[in-house]
Amino acid sequence: MTATSIKHAPSDVEEVRQAFYKDIARDDLAALWNVMGNFVKPEPDGPAKPALWNYSVVREHLRTAGELITAEEAERRVLILQNPGLPGSSLITRSLFAALQLVRPGEIAPCHRHSQNALRLIIEGGGAFTAVNGEKVYMEPFDLILTPAMHWHDHGNTTEQDVVWLDGLDLGIVQLFEASFANHFDGKVHPETRPAGDGFVRFGNHARPLTGISDYDTTRYGLYHYPYKQWCATLEQMRSDAPDPRHAHMIEFTNPTDGGPVLDTISCFAQLVPGGMSTKSARSSDGMVGTVVSGSGAAIISGERFKLTEKDMFIVPSWMPLELKAEADLTIFWFSDRAAQKKLGLWRSA
Amino acid sequence: MTATSIKHAPSDVEEVRQAFYKDIARDDLAALWNVMGNFVKPEPDGPAKPALWNYSVVREHLRTAGELITAEEAERRVLILQNPGLPGSSLITRSLFAALQLVRPGEIAPCHRHSQNALRLIIEGGGAFTAVNGEKVYMEPFDLILTPAMHWHDHGNTTEQDVVWLDGLDLGIVQLFEASFANHFDGKVHPETRPAGDGFVRFGNHARPLTGISDYDTTRYGLYHYPYKQWCATLEQMRSDAPDPRHAHMIEFTNPTDGGPVLDTISCFAQLVPGGMSTKSARSSDGMVGTVVSGSGAAIISGERFKLTEKDMFIVPSWMPLELKAEADLTIFWFSDRAAQKKLGLWRSA
Amino acid sequence: MTATSIKHAPSDVEEVRQAFYKDIARDDLAALWNVMGNFVKPEPDGPAKPALWNYSVVREHLRTAGELITAEEAERRVLILQNPGLPGSSLITRSLFAALQLVRPGEIAPCHRHSQNALRLIIEGGGAFTAVNGEKVYMEPFDLILTPAMHWHDHGNTTEQDVVWLDGLDLGIVQLFEASFANHFDGKVHPETRPAGDGFVRFGNHARPLTGISDYDTTRYGLYHYPYKQWCATLEQMRSDAPDPRHAHMIEFTNPTDGGPVLDTISCFAQLVPGGMSTKSARSSDGMVGTVVSGSGAAIISGERFKLTEKDMFIVPSWMPLELKAEADLTIFWFSDRAAQKKLGLWRSA
Amino acid sequence: MTATSIKHAPSDVEEVRQAFYKDIARDDLAALWNVMGNFVKPEPDGPAKPALWNYSVVREHLRTAGELITAEEAERRVLILQNPGLPGSSLITRSLFAALQLVRPGEIAPCHRHSQNALRLIIEGGGAFTAVNGEKVYMEPFDLILTPAMHWHDHGNTTEQDVVWLDGLDLGIVQLFEASFANHFDGKVHPETRPAGDGFVRFGNHARPLTGISDYDTTRYGLYHYPYKQWCATLEQMRSDAPDPRHAHMIEFTNPTDGGPVLDTISCFAQLVPGGMSTKSARSSDGMVGTVVSGSGAAIISGERFKLTEKDMFIVPSWMPLELKAEADLTIFWFSDRAAQKKLGLWRSA
Ligand SMILES: [Fe+2]
Ligand SMILES: [Fe+2]
Ligand SMILES: [Fe+2]
Ligand SMILES: [Fe+2]
Repeated sequence: MTATSIKHAPSDVEEVRQAFYKDIARDDLAALWNVMGNFVKPEPDGPAKPALWNYSVVREHLRTAGELITAEEAERRVLILQNPGLPGSSLITRSLFAALQLVRPGEIAPCHRHSQNALRLIIEGGGAFTAVNGEKVYMEPFDLILTPAMHWHDHGNTTEQDVVWLDGLDLGIVQLFEASFANHFDGKVHPETRPAGDGFVRFGNHARPLTGISDYDTTRYGLYHYPYKQWCATLEQMRSDAPDPRHAHMIEFTNPTDGGPVLDTISCFAQLVPGGMSTKSARSSDGMVGTVVSGSGAAIISGERFKLTEKDMFIVPSWMPLELKAEADLTIFWFSDRAAQKKLGLWRSA
Repeated sequence: MTATSIKHAPSDVEEVRQAFYKDIARDDLAALWNVMGNFVKPEPDGPAKPALWNYSVVREHLRTAGELITAEEAERRVLILQNPGLPGSSLITRSLFAALQLVRPGEIAPCHRHSQNALRLIIEGGGAFTAVNGEKVYMEPFDLILTPAMHWHDHGNTTEQDVVWLDGLDLGIVQLFEASFANHFDGKVHPETRPAGDGFVRFGNHARPLTGISDYDTTRYGLYHYPYKQWCATLEQMRSDAPDPRHAHMIEFTNPTDGGPVLDTISCFAQLVPGGMSTKSARSSDGMVGTVVSGSGAAIISGERFKLTEKDMFIVPSWMPLELKAEADLTIFWFSDRAAQKKLGLWRSA
Repeated sequence: MTATSIKHAPSDVEEVRQAFYKDIARDDLAALWNVMGNFVKPEPDGPAKPALWNYSVVREHLRTAGELITAEEAERRVLILQNPGLPGSSLITRSLFAALQLVRPGEIAPCHRHSQNALRLIIEGGGAFTAVNGEKVYMEPFDLILTPAMHWHDHGNTTEQDVVWLDGLDLGIVQLFEASFANHFDGKVHPETRPAGDGFVRFGNHARPLTGISDYDTTRYGLYHYPYKQWCATLEQMRSDAPDPRHAHMIEFTNPTDGGPVLDTISCFAQLVPGGMSTKSARSSDGMVGTVVSGSGAAIISGERFKLTEKDMFIVPSWMPLELKAEADLTIFWFSDRAAQKKLGLWRSA
Repeated sequence: MTATSIKHAPSDVEEVRQAFYKDIARDDLAALWNVMGNFVKPEPDGPAKPALWNYSVVREHLRTAGELITAEEAERRVLILQNPGLPGSSLITRSLFAALQLVRPGEIAPCHRHSQNALRLIIEGGGAFTAVNGEKVYMEPFDLILTPAMHWHDHGNTTEQDVVWLDGLDLGIVQLFEASFANHFDGKVHPETRPAGDGFVRFGNHARPLTGISDYDTTRYGLYHYPYKQWCATLEQMRSDAPDPRHAHMIEFTNPTDGGPVLDTISCFAQLVPGGMSTKSARSSDGMVGTVVSGSGAAIISGERFKLTEKDMFIVPSWMPLELKAEADLTIFWFSDRAAQKKLGLWRSA
């Protein structure tokens, strides 16, 4: 490509440019033409689509998977909620992963840890445990359980019934930053380091241990368990407020050591929309994964209506307006990457 | 004073200097001679002394005060624990105020607010209330109740028994900075703004309200009540740890909105020393006010022994070494200015 | 897919499973088989490759682009440094964009703003300006100029020589979070709001304005200009240290309003490796974009050797070990997503 | 004191109460009667008075002290600006100490460190040095030099002229908290650890060293020198703003490592009031120590007029309204305990 190239007639301009593009591509260069528009948009306009997974449908698939997959392979008995707008991605938004896992009686998972932050919302069954850094947390339906980055975790179902939970992870975020580290524990199960439920009593009572196995100066976490019984009580208490027109009654779960989001990258929320209420349209730049904990109604996402029944999961992509219609009192658990967006100065709502 | 003055013989030097000091005093100047030593010390060495107030003695005085002081004057029915090393100060350390207040059945205090941060530890009686910004908090023995700076507060004893509580305030701190502001509420009692106990359910369950009367972006406080039942459970849980040689089992109460100290200037702690244990000597730069919640034993403060029985109050001045001897399991509630010292980079322990 | 399916002989298992996968795909579900391995890796192992862009080669392409692209289209006269491991991405790492822009005499760019954070390192030419929120910043070679998220910016070359700069943006990050917002200014050029260079004097002298157009309580930025003259002096001063075996002499540019990274998502660094020194292998989880400001030598990235000459750009992907060999004193400007990784708890180095 | 005491006639009440007070005093108890009013005030109303020290008067006393006090005793050649409302306190406000020190040619001070934070504003003479942790900082008139808590410091006048500086310390604060620690350096002078002026180049150019003698993770300080030349330029730049009615042009000096106040407890400010301007009344809860750097005019403090000439020092106690009248352009250096008050939630302005 030389300066003389451009002396061609205007009709040749495009041809000349195409030759130039090829030329520079060999040197790992690309021209900006049209590219910026893919990134710098007046408003979020990503490929993720709104979608809902009806729990009875998913549950039937889980049942089948429970038969197809042996106990030895149980780790793989996970059905990923893949966004229909992100085929092949295994993700529910560009940043987040959501999946349903079935754990059958007697199954135990090997202990490991990784840079990815994870949350677990129990959907069915009670009495199984997740162990975090060697502390067992026993689960009941709709409890939230955390396994923050680089915390050892394993789980076991020592009950006689199936357990189903929702896993939420920041897989897309850690991948973007190419910052994944992981280890397998040397031994299938982490030794018990503390009594079961220890952190809940130790960190969950508005105090910080100054002595013992938890050292304040190095511990940013201590509470891994947010029981449904407790967060539900908070929402019930909020019925004494006039419902917010857009959000009705809503809380964000917090880390008691700093009052911030429960995980470094993921925020969790719970919402109560009283029966009969329709919320006004609201939107935010974090794509939000919802799970219907109880009640029924509908979600209108960017104008598309999704019927909501118990235990359904659904995704409201970034910046898409959401309205909720509650028939019976509607309780929804949400998670999103709001924690990360706020830290990076990116989060917006309207 | 002129240059010629110094031509005097050495024996006159002191005389000449004395004349100089008088001379400059008229211009509001003082010479540094000896002064710095009063301030810049190799180690804390203040006038506050260790002391203990035996509750049965104080209680008897309170009873008398209850008879001497009418209901109309009830606000004045407060006995100040004045440090014997700080006569006339009304303070228990240079920075802190501690007092016992008796509230008789039917008494109601007028509502006010001030820059001073206050805490209340209930010593006797249950069922009375403190209202904070119009939210009633009902109290039981050894509950901790907060009235942070500039929060409206009043209280009432609508029960049929006497209530006694310990008041802790940062009077010395606010005085040092000459930063006291205060208002009387226009109306004896603040109107009820929320259901009784609302904050405990709303902020005490590891969540932050995003809707309703509590606005996350402006609220640094929400939890005013730390029930004994709850903090005692945390200490009990910590029995599973090997006791720390110097502190046995100890927690700091935290503000759930930020994980920090409960008040801007005051930290609160609770400690459990198992029966039979003697702690090793420990010291810190914050003078600490202790209250024996249960158990018995002794405190050795800078070598001086104080017998500890239930409900006794005592003061461990800054940097004085403390050893605790527990006969029966000893539970102590503490408060100090550690919150302020840490923010100002002053706190040390050894 | 029914329970009976699994009664087939072991040889049929894979077939049955494949049928199951197809079945669930219709319901936007995917099985976890193999997927987690793409995300959860023992160490970073992304597709980005190490690469170097020789400036003389790129400069020649820029010259051609300068002829091919008219002044009216000048915004498009940008050559993207596209990672050879990320074809079609327009990105230099998964999170970052880097490009060289040629601005010819007399060209002025229209004013706009966007959620994306941007930095500009001047490579050639002096005297042109970037205006940030209406304040002109005049540029000299190797000055760093910031246009933080949602700050209005335009630029103009009112000199008689070409200007070339390196643009660095967090395009991949904002895309991941689907959080892009942008506006065009109503009018090609933002009105001048302050004297040219105002922020540098106002915020660059270790003071914070309490009066005037900059309001401390709302301003997180004020300094948009980090002159080469100044940062070079800091590196020169550091010659009095024994060089760090792995990093020789290195600084991170800081935002004077909080001492943190210069942008919410991007950190900038400068490094001086004295002539003759070879640094020991170092790695970090942030992929780093280097520009040779002066000197010569080589970079060994994961064992691959790249010759370094003045103004060359190169990329060290996440976690790849880097050794630098300085022939003549080697000064390198770096930028990476370390700011974001640290906030999200992801950053590691070794 | 028994219950029967109160059966006396009403006329005896006061007598009975007096007996009671004496009774409880023996048990280190005091009654609240009247005491709270000394602490909890509707507005700050402390004993500190506004005052001004005319520099020519003080300078003459310093000259005399220079003759009275030998080089061996030079450390004592300090004249304290003692608030006329705080006789015997050695303090200029309850929290702060201010003094003028004369250092004669050839004098060297022994190295020490202490919990107290200190600042130095040079008033006369140039070329002497303060060494902070072994790094010499050479001083010129109206430079600000910091010696933060527990930093080793010594100073020397190796010039042939007298040097006079203003010392500001947080003596009252450290005393209140009984948190004074201090050490003498083993050896009169700290060994030189870095080149003179190193920190200014290393930390003063909007970068943070990642290598070398300054370790980012442990260093909260690095810049000890705020030259007059630099801060004066910032104020001059601000002349392009419309002067703020109450503050004209004003800056707060900042610590480049965090953008916060220069010392943990003390904030420093500089102000320019253009000639002819009269500022509107302003007040704040921090008592402020002013030094006239240049210009002339008057300060009206709580209605009392003080004539201002070059190098005069004056005190505006907490909450007293201040108006400034500038005849010629008036430049004032200020310091106060605002840093501490803000951290403790106490600071207010109006
Ligand atoms: Fe995992
Ligand atoms: Fe009060
Ligand atoms: Fe732009
Ligand atoms: Fe000193």
